[in-house]
Amino acid sequence: MSGAREALLRVAPGGVLGILGGGQLGRMLALAAAELGIESHIYCPDPASPAFQIAKQITCAPYEDEAALTAFAAGVDAITYEFENVPARTAAILSAAKPVQPTVHALETTADRLTEKTFIRSLGIGTAEFRAVDSHADLAGAVGVLGRPSVLKTRRFGYDGKGQTIIRPGHDLSESLDRMGGQPAILEAFVPFVAEVSVIAVRSDNGSVRTYDLVENEHHDHILDQSIVPSRLSALVEDQALSIAATIIAALDYVGVLAVEMFVTSDHTVLVNEIAPRVHNSGHWTQDACLVSQFENHVRAVCGWPLGSTERHSDAVMTNLIGDDINAWRALAAEPNAALHLYGKLEARTGRKMGHVTRISPRSR
Amino acid sequence: MSGAREALLRVAPGGVLGILGGGQLGRMLALAAAELGIESHIYCPDPASPAFQIAKQITCAPYEDEAALTAFAAGVDAITYEFENVPARTAAILSAAKPVQPTVHALETTADRLTEKTFIRSLGIGTAEFRAVDSHADLAGAVGVLGRPSVLKTRRFGYDGKGQTIIRPGHDLSESLDRMGGQPAILEAFVPFVAEVSVIAVRSDNGSVRTYDLVENEHHDHILDQSIVPSRLSALVEDQALSIAATIIAALDYVGVLAVEMFVTSDHTVLVNEIAPRVHNSGHWTQDACLVSQFENHVRAVCGWPLGSTERHSDAVMTNLIGDDINAWRALAAEPNAALHLYGKLEARTGRKMGHVTRISPRSR
Repeated sequence: MSGAREALLRVAPGGVLGILGGGQLGRMLALAAAELGIESHIYCPDPASPAFQIAKQITCAPYEDEAALTAFAAGVDAITYEFENVPARTAAILSAAKPVQPTVHALETTADRLTEKTFIRSLGIGTAEFRAVDSHADLAGAVGVLGRPSVLKTRRFGYDGKGQTIIRPGHDLSESLDRMGGQPAILEAFVPFVAEVSVIAVRSDNGSVRTYDLVENEHHDHILDQSIVPSRLSALVEDQALSIAATIIAALDYVGVLAVEMFVTSDHTVLVNEIAPRVHNSGHWTQDACLVSQFENHVRAVCGWPLGSTERHSDAVMTNLIGDDINAWRALAAEPNAALHLYGKLEARTGRKMGHVTRISPRSR
Repeated sequence: MSGAREALLRVAPGGVLGILGGGQLGRMLALAAAELGIESHIYCPDPASPAFQIAKQITCAPYEDEAALTAFAAGVDAITYEFENVPARTAAILSAAKPVQPTVHALETTADRLTEKTFIRSLGIGTAEFRAVDSHADLAGAVGVLGRPSVLKTRRFGYDGKGQTIIRPGHDLSESLDRMGGQPAILEAFVPFVAEVSVIAVRSDNGSVRTYDLVENEHHDHILDQSIVPSRLSALVEDQALSIAATIIAALDYVGVLAVEMFVTSDHTVLVNEIAPRVHNSGHWTQDACLVSQFENHVRAVCGWPLGSTERHSDAVMTNLIGDDINAWRALAAEPNAALHLYGKLEARTGRKMGHVTRISPRSR
């Protein structure tokens, strides 16, 4: 799927890519950039940022520090980020100075579950049924239509199951809504899925789109536990999911990597759950089972390079190392077909993503 | 080939590995360390060192600066290097403070072609015939025995064909020796090889040894041009070469990665040309065709981690990008099955290694 023209070159070898956010995603983006001879400048307010360990150029300042943002932008050739909740003012300051990808438009569309789902439906792509909830009356009405169980979520800033509550038979609606703390919310019908899947897609500014193979995901306590490739789903489901991701990334006029998380129901329907406008945990397996990882392809896209291969040379199962899981690092490192990735985080707090391990095997299909 | 006991842990996740040398090898070692959650501290006298771009901790000082060496050693958990010509005094200062791998012993054995070849022969492994040359009389006598063509080389500090001259019929011996500038030399019989091959081996301090598949190398102007895996040589030759490398790494009591470069003659004899006690250009293909690269396995070995897999999941052809070759970076980046690696060097001088490209294909055997 080649575009007709070359992408606009934004960062040449020897150039500098600015990365907002210094967690493991920023770190892995910077490591991928380094392999291409591109320097990274990491901007993050947290002095203990894992990405600071592997970059010569760092800025440790709040995202609201306009002087720091301006200086950061002046020293880089292009800017990207590892997280989707970039404050609008921050994005505006940076965009005025240097090319920022993905764009503010893509962030705005996906930052709010109501806007996001409305956008997805406008493309003729299925989602769970949903209703906006701004009041107790809204919630009562929505539960009347969507039934129980249904899922009440904040419209913004939710991840890893935060800001979500399941409304089950007998649950008190007022209490559930009060738990949202007055934030705008959305009620979603419960989808009785047989599998959770995702597609990592990448798009260049010349319109080229590539997708990695369909990933089957298993969550534990709302946090991704395992990603399995190839998925155990039918070719029909895979084609449907890849096509959905390609449609969404093009419709957003998006440049870079994004992940589309989807549910598969027992009748093989694919419904989009959410879009993550960034490199994604369910794409970590690409580091070890593909020639070009999601991180490198994101760097290529935002720097205006040709996209790299998204072919898979091996089967893979990626398992997150959460909190104390890290203590098994030595046994994991000794496994014959396992690649260990640790993020350089010093404190193994409960629920904290400390690393991941990818086990590969010869490609089965 | 598992050792009986665990290796002694020298650098745990979150620890710091000191790396002497800031070129592309130090850079790729540091990137591999980062994937394991290990920080690198790069020590190099050259302020433009490519490895400085990807490390938070750097020391820019001469290798003779004892205060800088002492401070460097104090801040790291273990030390390794990207090049073999570490001054003896430098190695002594560092070894007194922290574990240094490979050891000074291994460096001393391989730093001098005469010592090296004598050591290899003592293991019952073949090399070209050779004679020490310290004088014009030595040279005349050696040429009398080994014939022409034969190869006159400095005993120390040679790489990429530097410090070598071929003595052909009619060549003036005095002039050839004078070109060595009075350095101790060695005359080697010319080996009419049909192939140049190498083996990348890694050894843990518990005695475990692993080898990557045999590599077939093609040189151009004495600089490595291409490495091809699998080689086009017979299984018999491959077995012989792997066994030679495993014997050498064990006999040196070596910890880390080393490369053994060999000639294959028309009668399938394998003769060792030289040992490189470090990660090696002919092992770069392991980044893209193996789950664990030579760089990661070197880091694992010197840090006291279990060795990683040396299995190959794909066939590979690695091509160096020398000097102006780098200008084709964009076309190379667009190739469907190519992984591009650029070293962040700003100036593309003639003969300078600027990067490499590895083209992979499904494993054929």
